Amino acid sequence: MADSSSYTPPKVWTWDSESGGAFAKINRPVAGATHEKELPVGEHPLQLYSLATPNGVKVTVLLEELLEIGKDAEYDAYFINIGEGDQFGSGFVEINPNSKIPALLDRSTSPPTRVFESGAILLYLAEKFGAFVPEDSSARAECLSWLFWQMGATPYLGGGFGHFYAYAPEKFEYPINRYAMEVKRQLDVLDKNLADRRYLVGDEYTIADMATAPWYGGVVLGHLYGAQEFLDASSYENVVRWANEFGERPAVRRGQRVNRAWGPEEEQVVERHGPSDFD
Amino acid sequence: MADSSSYTPPKVWTWDSESGGAFAKINRPVAGATHEKELPVGEHPLQLYSLATPNGVKVTVLLEELLEIGKDAEYDAYFINIGEGDQFGSGFVEINPNSKIPALLDRSTSPPTRVFESGAILLYLAEKFGAFVPEDSSARAECLSWLFWQMGATPYLGGGFGHFYAYAPEKFEYPINRYAMEVKRQLDVLDKNLADRRYLVGDEYTIADMATAPWYGGVVLGHLYGAQEFLDASSYENVVRWANEFGERPAVRRGQRVNRAWGPEEEQVVERHGPSDFD
Repeated sequence: MADSSSYTPPKVWTWDSESGGAFAKINRPVAGATHEKELPVGEHPLQLYSLATPNGVKVTVLLEELLEIGKDAEYDAYFINIGEGDQFGSGFVEINPNSKIPALLDRSTSPPTRVFESGAILLYLAEKFGAFVPEDSSARAECLSWLFWQMGATPYLGGGFGHFYAYAPEKFEYPINRYAMEVKRQLDVLDKNLADRRYLVGDEYTIADMATAPWYGGVVLGHLYGAQEFLDASSYENVVRWANEFGERPAVRRGQRVNRAWGPEEEQVVERHGPSDFD
Repeated sequence: MADSSSYTPPKVWTWDSESGGAFAKINRPVAGATHEKELPVGEHPLQLYSLATPNGVKVTVLLEELLEIGKDAEYDAYFINIGEGDQFGSGFVEINPNSKIPALLDRSTSPPTRVFESGAILLYLAEKFGAFVPEDSSARAECLSWLFWQMGATPYLGGGFGHFYAYAPEKFEYPINRYAMEVKRQLDVLDKNLADRRYLVGDEYTIADMATAPWYGGVVLGHLYGAQEFLDASSYENVVRWANEFGERPAVRRGQRVNRAWGPEEEQVVERHGPSDFD
């Protein structure tokens, strides 16, 4: 036990906008738009406003998988620069009042349908196109269970472990220990499940895999937070196997490039409007 | 900025089972069963294994709401004592490999269907009985968006703010500030949405409300973490109005009592097997 402190919380919390480490300037205690800004709109029915973080990649992977099997899921994907506060523009907030990527507008309905939260977007699109979510009631329940598991588990990985291990202004021992333990438990949950299953739900590749692999696959393959050794992540061998298989899919490779504006230039498809954008 | 520390994380994290504050002994870095233990099974098709925390209450509220409108949703609800490690028994882990409450077994299918994660259980039951999730595609998308919003947001409230404000072994300033800011933002997201909507999705009461009110209603009404004043929670007036309306529903009042083994004795229905258990 370290980080000893004589701190006593005040009666009423007040905002010190100077604190917070990396991303401090995009974290606020209030919701809503900070400025007027319309969103661009392309030619396809589906408009995605996103960024190639794991939560964004979930959705572009699904869209590319849908196209791969011949579904009419063409889409325009626009880059949301969260460092510049694009998520607080009035147009974005209209689609997602929570000001987080990804956000989807489906213009094929009248009026257009907004969908926010990556898990909701995955389920909405999978149901709309009738793919990657099982039809059988029990298998569907298993898919929903793992999909919701990812949504409830990953805040401990991203906003918890990732923040305290990689982004916080100091290395605080207690939170790092707390979240490292939980992330290892989560990796073990996945590893045990994948010991006798090819995919999370069984033999069928579903949106549960697309939701989970960008996060936990990123950890075990060493792409996230530089914490592979710290978490002994390569010891979760079933997760490694599953993450590698996921990463080799052509649709996944395309999806990972969409709304990406960092890394090797040939990996960047900052805006995506059609298949030729990957050439 | 306080909690200054000269801590340097080791190359590889190791478990110090002595640390962790309240609930330390039920947090582990590994998954799976620790002991053989079968679960009890009652007479109804639906078997719920749970506890009257906000995540548990979500499901018992939905089941009571379904019964209230005449659906055949009779259920047996068994108490899972997480302080005693019931969630690590082999029978429980078979239904929920993540070892968290609530977990559901639907014996009306062959073989029985397991469902875990409160959000998945809500959606599974709402679809099974055809109620509390909108049929119209756009309204359904809005319901899914808010349902997934709750699942992704609340780890910052419960495992983040609640832990560091109420349960951690010391008051660490940086994490308390981090999570207080985020919880206030979340309350403001809800407050702005409820400014011109009766329920989260509009005029229709849905599983999104049942998922969200036990948590954020608990905060604004002062039932959770004793943080009402610290978060100035009563200033979110639309959330207060909505939480009060939710709390007055007969089905909610019943649901809150199920699998509860603390507080006033007349509020405790530790196991629930039929309507007469509330008498």
